[in-house]
Amino acid sequence: MTTTVAALSAPEAGAPFEKVELTRRDLRPDDVRIDIRFAGICHSDIHSARGEWAGTPFPLTPGHEIIGNVVEVGDQVTRHQVGDTVGVGCFVDACLECEACKDGEEQFCAQGVVPTYGGTGYDGERTAGGYSESVVVRDHFVVKIPDGVDLAATTPLLCAGITTYNPLVRYGVGPGTKVGVIGLGGLGHVAVKIAAALGAEVSVFSRTDAKAQDGKEFGATDYFATEDGTVFDEHAGEYDLLLNTVGDGVDLDAYFGLLGRGGTMVNVGAPSDKLSLGAFSVLSMRRALAGSMVGGLPQTQEMLDFCAEHGITATVEVISADQVDEYYDKVVAGDVRYRAVIDTSTLG
Amino acid sequence: MTTTVAALSAPEAGAPFEKVELTRRDLRPDDVRIDIRFAGICHSDIHSARGEWAGTPFPLTPGHEIIGNVVEVGDQVTRHQVGDTVGVGCFVDACLECEACKDGEEQFCAQGVVPTYGGTGYDGERTAGGYSESVVVRDHFVVKIPDGVDLAATTPLLCAGITTYNPLVRYGVGPGTKVGVIGLGGLGHVAVKIAAALGAEVSVFSRTDAKAQDGKEFGATDYFATEDGTVFDEHAGEYDLLLNTVGDGVDLDAYFGLLGRGGTMVNVGAPSDKLSLGAFSVLSMRRALAGSMVGGLPQTQEMLDFCAEHGITATVEVISADQVDEYYDKVVAGDVRYRAVIDTSTLG
Repeated sequence: MTTTVAALSAPEAGAPFEKVELTRRDLRPDDVRIDIRFAGICHSDIHSARGEWAGTPFPLTPGHEIIGNVVEVGDQVTRHQVGDTVGVGCFVDACLECEACKDGEEQFCAQGVVPTYGGTGYDGERTAGGYSESVVVRDHFVVKIPDGVDLAATTPLLCAGITTYNPLVRYGVGPGTKVGVIGLGGLGHVAVKIAAALGAEVSVFSRTDAKAQDGKEFGATDYFATEDGTVFDEHAGEYDLLLNTVGDGVDLDAYFGLLGRGGTMVNVGAPSDKLSLGAFSVLSMRRALAGSMVGGLPQTQEMLDFCAEHGITATVEVISADQVDEYYDKVVAGDVRYRAVIDTSTLG
Repeated sequence: MTTTVAALSAPEAGAPFEKVELTRRDLRPDDVRIDIRFAGICHSDIHSARGEWAGTPFPLTPGHEIIGNVVEVGDQVTRHQVGDTVGVGCFVDACLECEACKDGEEQFCAQGVVPTYGGTGYDGERTAGGYSESVVVRDHFVVKIPDGVDLAATTPLLCAGITTYNPLVRYGVGPGTKVGVIGLGGLGHVAVKIAAALGAEVSVFSRTDAKAQDGKEFGATDYFATEDGTVFDEHAGEYDLLLNTVGDGVDLDAYFGLLGRGGTMVNVGAPSDKLSLGAFSVLSMRRALAGSMVGGLPQTQEMLDFCAEHGITATVEVISADQVDEYYDKVVAGDVRYRAVIDTSTLG
């Protein structure tokens, strides 16, 4: 038995979205059915829908930033009740028995984490994401949305929030640390807000000064337009952590010069080009280039609570289902300020 | 006033060594004069003497692995006495006032560390290294050689020992950790011995199985010849730390697959090619590529004491001054087992 729900679907790589009907499974004992209110557009949705990442199955319904209301729960569900406002992020199942799962890092599950869309569940069924009216998700993978927050603007935190919060916390960002955020887009603007709320001194590195005022409003102390290159000499060695939210085209060696002793650049973007840097960029000052990939469920809840407490949301444009193709182009062009969120009530 | 001492010198990049006379400065109040007994040949000596690193000044007397006897001390020297057996490593001066120096990481001195050879001291004079009869060094940069050790075989620890000990300790290697050492040369063979003495389970990754027996004798549990490639599948995700002692030609993405969650590859070699890897090599399992550059004076002393306590030395071939050119070729060809050390009594 299944339920039929309205959704957006890309029939093949790069094709415009179509309104379709998806099936959602009947509830298992540990499942939660969520009527979706908002679904964020993440740049990785675009990579997937346009076939830029090998192995993406089509037709594809993206969306891994989801907020909605619980409308039904399975017999064994205790953590969520009908009527709760909840969220779903980048993945919807994992073994919950391996070391990574036990450590609350389900994204690194040894059995393989099940992505919210474009993946295959342990039942062999394709997963389909949040660009739809409703979704059924195992309770462990559903987080609580704190009371009183702006739901549309909180939606992107389910990916952009945890993706940036995780490395900022892991590398000990706080009062006395100096953080540089490379790129002021969907991820970058949230990173600035969170790093500032953690107490760090934050700088934005953006190609032009077009977003300088926004950067300061988000909490940055400094904003550097990198196109003239002088910042790399003037601020050499000053930074403890650089969070690189940009995909391709970043001169890593130039940025490494900004890092002080023991400094780390954390890459959270997903460039298609190789990451490439001179050996002395890491040898000097024992620097490191690290990666990070979202965060687990316990930390996702912690991040949402932190953001609610500090009044942090994404800065969003709420759009209708009809605008998704147009906004994909705008995201790629860097013209969205700063995250597009689909009002899923427009799917019908 | 200066003293004249016999030395080897490369008159220009890539030229054979010549026996020359060097001048050494008269003692300042905090100086120690050391009659050199042994000087190790490090691969970076070869890069320098052959002009493979930009900016190396000629004529050049290399050598930054030095053991000898104190023969004279300045008025203010309290840490060393005439007759002590002492060592000098990769650098001979630093400001001792900056944050790095205060943290015992003089190699990252904000004023600029003075390398043992091929550099310029704060007095404006060129530095000249250990391929000579005698050297004058500021006392802070002179370490004590523990009693009873094999001096020739301990000499390479002044660079190869601290270069590998530093990241192994910094990344918490010990019982329960699994370490892979890439390359079994001058650095790699010392890394295996130290990592095993720290209690880790150690694997060697070498191109062929030519050094398999040696690898086991140095303390490795496993030795993998990488030329057939199967090791990368069979041991995916098993390693906590990979220490890359090889210069060019390492397929970083293949090795990153061996790292588990949060694993780090530390690069201690100095490849001339860019370090290049796919973004998902670091994004997956939040791995990192780090660099490391020798270690400070306090840790160099700690390393020497640790090695003496655990009976660790390099495995060396002691050569005469006449053999240096020949051994440079042998080092580059990987034919030295495992570090060449010059008996400086043959310089006369």
